[in-house]
Amino acid sequence: MKKTHEKKIDTLLSHVLVPPGRKVSLRKDYDPGWKPQSVGKDEGQSLLDEGINELAAMQDKLYAQDHYALLIIFQAMDAAGKDGAIKHVMSGINPQGCQVYSFKAPSSEELDHDYLWRCYKALPERGRIGIFNRSYYEEVLVTKVHPEIIQKQRLPLQFKDKKIYQRRYEEINNFEKYLFHNGIIPIKFFLNVSKDEQKRRFLDRINRPEKNWKLSPADAKERGYWDHYMAAYEDCFRATSTKWAPWHIIPADNKWVSRLSVAAIIHRRLAELKLAYPRVSKEQKAALLETKAMLESEK
Amino acid sequence: MKKTHEKKIDTLLSHVLVPPGRKVSLRKDYDPGWKPQSVGKDEGQSLLDEGINELAAMQDKLYAQDHYALLIIFQAMDAAGKDGAIKHVMSGINPQGCQVYSFKAPSSEELDHDYLWRCYKALPERGRIGIFNRSYYEEVLVTKVHPEIIQKQRLPLQFKDKKIYQRRYEEINNFEKYLFHNGIIPIKFFLNVSKDEQKRRFLDRINRPEKNWKLSPADAKERGYWDHYMAAYEDCFRATSTKWAPWHIIPADNKWVSRLSVAAIIHRRLAELKLAYPRVSKEQKAALLETKAMLESEK
Repeated sequence: MKKTHEKKIDTLLSHVLVPPGRKVSLRKDYDPGWKPQSVGKDEGQSLLDEGINELAAMQDKLYAQDHYALLIIFQAMDAAGKDGAIKHVMSGINPQGCQVYSFKAPSSEELDHDYLWRCYKALPERGRIGIFNRSYYEEVLVTKVHPEIIQKQRLPLQFKDKKIYQRRYEEINNFEKYLFHNGIIPIKFFLNVSKDEQKRRFLDRINRPEKNWKLSPADAKERGYWDHYMAAYEDCFRATSTKWAPWHIIPADNKWVSRLSVAAIIHRRLAELKLAYPRVSKEQKAALLETKAMLESEK
Repeated sequence: MKKTHEKKIDTLLSHVLVPPGRKVSLRKDYDPGWKPQSVGKDEGQSLLDEGINELAAMQDKLYAQDHYALLIIFQAMDAAGKDGAIKHVMSGINPQGCQVYSFKAPSSEELDHDYLWRCYKALPERGRIGIFNRSYYEEVLVTKVHPEIIQKQRLPLQFKDKKIYQRRYEEINNFEKYLFHNGIIPIKFFLNVSKDEQKRRFLDRINRPEKNWKLSPADAKERGYWDHYMAAYEDCFRATSTKWAPWHIIPADNKWVSRLSVAAIIHRRLAELKLAYPRVSKEQKAALLETKAMLESEK
């Protein structure tokens, strides 16, 4: 990527990272409508296209090297653009090296396990980019807004106490640290859409018949809990943005800004890994040369 | 797709389908170097690009409708271009609707199960395109060429008899019929590379250091069993090309021909499903209109 582009990306990124331990005020510090001053929509699109090509090339090396995996987590309110971001940023990537899991309300089999279990099973193999469309973070978000969910879960009674979220944050941090130490690198995105923009998008889904299937009245009802959700997210970001698994709060009222930011952050993280195609050892090379001789002498 | 393109695709497809029950002679009936007379390489590339865009649009509907799944199976000799075909045909598809599984030699946990078990677990969910890079067909191919593999498997002794392959063909046909009846549609590709072209590609992997990691001397050793493999494939195609799960023998010496053929066949199969975005019921529509009124009356 060109040096001038690098700088523009730096500016963009400085607006979205959650520094570990910092108290987060979504209202004050993170504007869902934010746009970079130095990049317009058209240039943004061409930066995105360029970035996606480079992502595809880096992912090829990630796969060949078979050493690291990325675990990309998307969390957001409804209609914030998670599906669109996954589609637009990750199309163009070889699907052989990319796995997407969408987590819905847990099944009764899943509820018969601890809350990380179903996510654990869905972790990406080495060499892959794994994407979680929602994740175990629901267990410190939707459950906090609707405490009756936790009451129904089959946890030991003494652990349904006031400190449950404090413990879960710590459990999640430890889990992600473990992943990081094992070469599975978490990157976390919150697509920060405003309440007004969500309303516009919901109305659009109602007004356009071909989009009707995307909305259920229950989604709109959840808007009633907007402030509770924002508070739960703020607590979560403060507690679980870590050096090894930082949160990024992505301005999501403009889809192009959101997609460009996501692509840039993934790009930056992959570049830091200094990926390269594997080199064979001297012994392997010698064996290959023998094979070559054998092939060339075939009748 | 334009009418003239449709016709060219028809010609192409008539060369690759294995009619159910037909005895297959790879040497006589399927030329690995075949190219369509009516389409050149450049036009082929633009047909492929066009096809991939249409595939992406159809896959979006497949996902929204959440009714069918495609199960695309790739089998081939080494270096026939399976990975490249998956990459070039399926990049551009939303990875949220596409899952690729590469099956390696079975683990000891997998060997503790029946031979379909590990593939069963990896079947695509409804709405998805699932791709098997190799599959349960290895159990009637590599095992037939190397009978000692079956001897080591923990099958009941009386079922390690001469009729094992006859039974397995029938089991596979029944399994695939079951999938088809449940909305999971199998499409099977054999990428038919010639022995000479495989040699050229192996030598290329030896001569170019950045490609060394792709070849192991063991791969080249398997060439010694080429005729055995071809015989096993021929038996397999005759026994398991069915109306509900036909085999396609794809000329694979020219990568563009191979990728175009694969894309065209998937395209054709998706088009036959007459996919459409889901329509909501009258009751759902009424509920959405209530939601609309609620949203519009928000303070």
